[in-house]
Amino acid sequence: MVISSTCRVIYGDTDNMGVVYYGQYLRFFEVGRNEYMRARGLPYREVERRGLILPVTEARCRYLRPARYDDLVTVETWVERARGARVVFGYRLRNEGGDLLAEGHTEHGSVNRDGRPVRLSPDLIEALAPEENPAA
Amino acid sequence: MVISSTCRVIYGDTDNMGVVYYGQYLRFFEVGRNEYMRARGLPYREVERRGLILPVTEARCRYLRPARYDDLVTVETWVERARGARVVFGYRLRNEGGDLLAEGHTEHGSVNRDGRPVRLSPDLIEALAPEENPAA
Amino acid sequence: MVISSTCRVIYGDTDNMGVVYYGQYLRFFEVGRNEYMRARGLPYREVERRGLILPVTEARCRYLRPARYDDLVTVETWVERARGARVVFGYRLRNEGGDLLAEGHTEHGSVNRDGRPVRLSPDLIEALAPEENPAA
Amino acid sequence: MVISSTCRVIYGDTDNMGVVYYGQYLRFFEVGRNEYMRARGLPYREVERRGLILPVTEARCRYLRPARYDDLVTVETWVERARGARVVFGYRLRNEGGDLLAEGHTEHGSVNRDGRPVRLSPDLIEALAPEENPAA
Repeated sequence: MVISSTCRVIYGDTDNMGVVYYGQYLRFFEVGRNEYMRARGLPYREVERRGLILPVTEARCRYLRPARYDDLVTVETWVERARGARVVFGYRLRNEGGDLLAEGHTEHGSVNRDGRPVRLSPDLIEALAPEENPAA
Repeated sequence: MVISSTCRVIYGDTDNMGVVYYGQYLRFFEVGRNEYMRARGLPYREVERRGLILPVTEARCRYLRPARYDDLVTVETWVERARGARVVFGYRLRNEGGDLLAEGHTEHGSVNRDGRPVRLSPDLIEALAPEENPAA
Repeated sequence: MVISSTCRVIYGDTDNMGVVYYGQYLRFFEVGRNEYMRARGLPYREVERRGLILPVTEARCRYLRPARYDDLVTVETWVERARGARVVFGYRLRNEGGDLLAEGHTEHGSVNRDGRPVRLSPDLIEALAPEENPAA
Repeated sequence: MVISSTCRVIYGDTDNMGVVYYGQYLRFFEVGRNEYMRARGLPYREVERRGLILPVTEARCRYLRPARYDDLVTVETWVERARGARVVFGYRLRNEGGDLLAEGHTEHGSVNRDGRPVRLSPDLIEALAPEENPAA
């Protein structure tokens, strides 16, 4: 399951080179996974309310074509893996012409409020990655 | 008393127009007041430890000349007023040639952890604005 | 004429205090004026194509209530003044409950590609502030 | 050769979780490579003046321990590889206690003003990675 969200590029996203600053892509990734979880019926704010936090343990982005001011960027987001105490999101960014701008992923641990790793609950796995767990 | 701090402009601060994005100046202001308080012997982190928070209630910036990539910007910071439950910081930004780039101020309330306004303690007023309160 | 745009608050907008960082409001203002101009049929990108730039000369924000993670913030934007070589935008931010979070304005000069002040053309004034210029 | 730079964490770098936002680490990486090149006698601004741009083609970061407000973060930067039309920088971030907070790398192409890939010149390779090219 892939969820698409859009981000309009503002001046504040761009840099001196006339393109989106490389660090801003991680903001776009966050928009993507927020909307993914909302679309799955479990906004991240709700996950936090249940006492679970999913801190990023690794992020990676490949930059293929520059995004520019006023581009309407589509962030395609999916879950690559959700098992044990670990979630991996995948992302693809496209411009309005459909060109692939960037692709990446983020890995997340699953910890409780005391920072201890805890296994993802079945309903969270189901919400994150239904196709991985068809029997749930 | 005016405390000077420096910020090196990175690509991430600039925008499409080849100059520092207008919102980034509020980051420079924060650097300025952090270093002001550290120089006065009372880092903001220590203020928080005492249970006090100084949320911004108003910010204003006049942009006079653009700051550019790799400029070493000096932030001059002072306290315009520290009385009751309110602090006002003033700022001036200059480039290496001494040109005035921007000037502004931020106003802050003084609240406890429950969000209730509390008067600034005499030692905090003394740390923030010694010249205002010579008898303290 | 007031144009409303929305911004979903992400983690990247918030700070240590659990609320949106004060500098991010200037990003929300930019979203507001971009969408204002698009709604008026003259996206800022198109203004630039015509050789005009509207750099910010002053920004001001009053912070009334904190915006928080995952809030859907509405930015109400209007033009307070558009005359000569100067434009002033006004902004109000509200949360989903309609509470006023912040209000502010930005002032902009009007310069050509060489940085020289130039008067706003009648069609730009008309696009920005139709109610100011009913005969246009 | 490893060059160390420092960044003081401000509120604007942190997020709702009380730690530095994951996207801000790419800003710290940029500070590191800027200071690396300055220390090697060839600031990036000077590279641009020569008509060369080094756009990021990939970025990766592993997050090991959180950086927090007011931490003085040290960014250790080195060149992993500088050959052909490609440069790879490596980074390690530490707090004041010496704990490893994060590690990562960025890959950069080498293009001219028209966006065409061009080989790194011998003096640029020498400046970036002297140990790789002892005969230069």
